[in-house]
Amino acid sequence: MRKQVQFFYDSYFKSVPLITMTTLQIINDRVFPQVTKSYEMWNQPPASNSVQTPLFLPLISPKEDGFTAVILAYDRVTSLFQLIKSIDKVPSLRMILVVWNNQKKAFPARNEWPIIEHEWKVIQTSSNKLSNRFYPYNEIKTEGVLSIDDDIIMLTTDEIEFAFQVWREFPDRIVGFPSRLHLWTDDNRLRYESEWKNDISVVLTGAAFYHNYFNYLYSYKMPGGIKAWVDEHMNCEDIAMNFIVSNHTGKAPIKVTPRKKFKCTECATGGSLSLDETHMVERSTCMNHFASLYGVSPLKTISFRADPVLFMDKLPEKRKRFPDIGSL
Amino acid sequence: MRKQVQFFYDSYFKSVPLITMTTLQIINDRVFPQVTKSYEMWNQPPASNSVQTPLFLPLISPKEDGFTAVILAYDRVTSLFQLIKSIDKVPSLRMILVVWNNQKKAFPARNEWPIIEHEWKVIQTSSNKLSNRFYPYNEIKTEGVLSIDDDIIMLTTDEIEFAFQVWREFPDRIVGFPSRLHLWTDDNRLRYESEWKNDISVVLTGAAFYHNYFNYLYSYKMPGGIKAWVDEHMNCEDIAMNFIVSNHTGKAPIKVTPRKKFKCTECATGGSLSLDETHMVERSTCMNHFASLYGVSPLKTISFRADPVLFMDKLPEKRKRFPDIGSL
Repeated sequence: MRKQVQFFYDSYFKSVPLITMTTLQIINDRVFPQVTKSYEMWNQPPASNSVQTPLFLPLISPKEDGFTAVILAYDRVTSLFQLIKSIDKVPSLRMILVVWNNQKKAFPARNEWPIIEHEWKVIQTSSNKLSNRFYPYNEIKTEGVLSIDDDIIMLTTDEIEFAFQVWREFPDRIVGFPSRLHLWTDDNRLRYESEWKNDISVVLTGAAFYHNYFNYLYSYKMPGGIKAWVDEHMNCEDIAMNFIVSNHTGKAPIKVTPRKKFKCTECATGGSLSLDETHMVERSTCMNHFASLYGVSPLKTISFRADPVLFMDKLPEKRKRFPDIGSL
Repeated sequence: MRKQVQFFYDSYFKSVPLITMTTLQIINDRVFPQVTKSYEMWNQPPASNSVQTPLFLPLISPKEDGFTAVILAYDRVTSLFQLIKSIDKVPSLRMILVVWNNQKKAFPARNEWPIIEHEWKVIQTSSNKLSNRFYPYNEIKTEGVLSIDDDIIMLTTDEIEFAFQVWREFPDRIVGFPSRLHLWTDDNRLRYESEWKNDISVVLTGAAFYHNYFNYLYSYKMPGGIKAWVDEHMNCEDIAMNFIVSNHTGKAPIKVTPRKKFKCTECATGGSLSLDETHMVERSTCMNHFASLYGVSPLKTISFRADPVLFMDKLPEKRKRFPDIGSL
C-alpha cells in the first residue's frame, strides 16, 4: 500500500513538470480514446512481473497437483499389476486410471488387484479403440497426464518422477521416454526413424506426460478424420498425438533420459534390415498419410534431451536426487 | 485457393441450415459488435496452426540467423585471442564483438589480432563498468547473444554450437554452462550455492546465450538502481541478469552439459570451507540486496539440464553430432 502511494507520487505528482505531463496525458487520453493508457498502465508499477513483449509470454504454470496415470490395458494382467505397483511409488502420482479396452474379457475382480496407496479406477470401454486412451475422462482431475502402456514395467520411480518435473516446465509439450525421428527421403516422403539418432521429433505415448488439454484436442479437434483412421488401423495413435500437439504449439516434444527400448542392432551390422522393418514401414505410411491430411508435416525436430542436473557426474549416489536413471 | 473456397462452401453455403446460420451470425455481429467474429475467424480454417488457448502460445521463433559473441575483455590478450580463434569455428557464429573495458591500456593494434573467418569488431568503452557487457549495441544484428568472459577457453566448438541450438528452443531463457543455485537459510536469507547441487536457478553470464532483448531490459529497465550498484561494486552483473530475466518471464534458466569449472572440493572434505568462501559470501550478499530491491526473489529453480540426444550413449563417436561435450 505504501509502495503504491509512493508509485503514484513518484509517477504523477513529484514535480510541477510531472503534474503537467500527467494532466496533458489525461486530456490526451480523453481526446484520443484509441491510444488511452490502460487502467493497469496508470496504476501498476512497471517493473515487477510485467511482460511487455509477445516474445516472452509466460505460460500458465501447471498447478503442483501431481499427475494422473492413464494405463491402456487389454489382457496382460501380470504386467499391468506390476506396473500399477511400480507407479504407485512415484511421489507426484495422484490417481491411476486403467482404461480396460477389452470387450470380450472382463477386467479382474476388485479383490484380485494389488493393494496400493493411491486412488485408482477402471474404465470399461465399449469398443477396442486406441483413441480411448486419449479421452479427457472426468476422472482426470490433474493437468498432467502420464499415458503408459500396460507392459512398460522397466521405468524406475526416479525416471517417472523426473519426467513429471520436466513436464511441469513444459506443459505445452509431450515429455517422455521413447523417441523417434521423421526424415525426408529423396522422393519427398516421410520416413519413420529409430531411436538411435541425433535428433528427435516424436515421443511415443506408450510412456509420456502431456497436458490433459491435448486429450480434448485429440478427441474433438483432430483434423481430416485421422482419429477414425487410427481406430480402424489399430496403429499410430501416438504419431497422431505428436502431429496434433506440434501443429498446435509449433514446438517439438522433449525426450527424458537415455533409456531405450531396443538394442541398436543396426549399429553393429552397419545398417542392415532389422526384424522391426515391417513395423517401420507401417509407421512411415502413417506419417505420410497424416501429413497429406494436414497438408504439411507439423512435426518439429529437436537435438537435446533432458537429464537430471547431476546425471553421470562422478558424485556419490546419495548426493543425487534422481540416482536411478538411464541404465539400459 | 481451392482449399479456401472449399472451406467457405463447407462453412457457410453447404446446406440451407448453414446458410441460415451464417445469415443470423452476420446479423448478430452487426447488432452486438462487441462479440463480432473477427476477420480471421470468418476467413480461416480452424485447424492448422491455430492456437486457441493462452496456455500454449507459441513464442516467436528466433530467426535461424546465428548468434553474436560478445566478449568482455580487459587485459588478458593471450586468452582473448585464443578464445576468438576457438569461437570462430562455431558453425552458427555470425559476428564477434569485443567489449574492451580498459581505459588505461589500449586494445592491441588491428594487425596483432588473429585472422579469422567471421566479422569482428572492438568497442572501446568509456568507463570500466560491468554493465557494458549487457548493452544492446547496434552492432548486434542477431537475436541470440553469446556472453562470454575473455578467459573461458575450455569450451569446445561442439559445446557452444549445441548450447546455441538449445537456446533457439528457449529464446526466453538464459541458456549456458556454469550454473548456481539459491537456497533459503533458516533465518530467511538467500544463500548462493555452488554448482554441485541437484537444482539450478542461476546460469552465469560468463558463458551463456540469451536474447538481445534482455540487453535492452538490463540497460534500461532494471529496477531499484541495481545497475548502478553492480557497476559500483564491480560484481554480480550475472546475478542481476538472472534476476531480471526470471522476473520478466517467470521461468528458470537452462544449464547445458555437465561441464563444471571447479572440482568438487566439498564433496571430498564433506562440506568444509573452501577457498571460495569469501566469494560465496559476497555473492550471497548480492542476492539478498537484489531480492530486497525487488521485494521478492524472482529466481526459479529447475532440476534438469540439456544434453545431446545421444549423450553418454554407447555408440561410435562418429554417429554423434556433438561428440565433444561434457568432459571435465
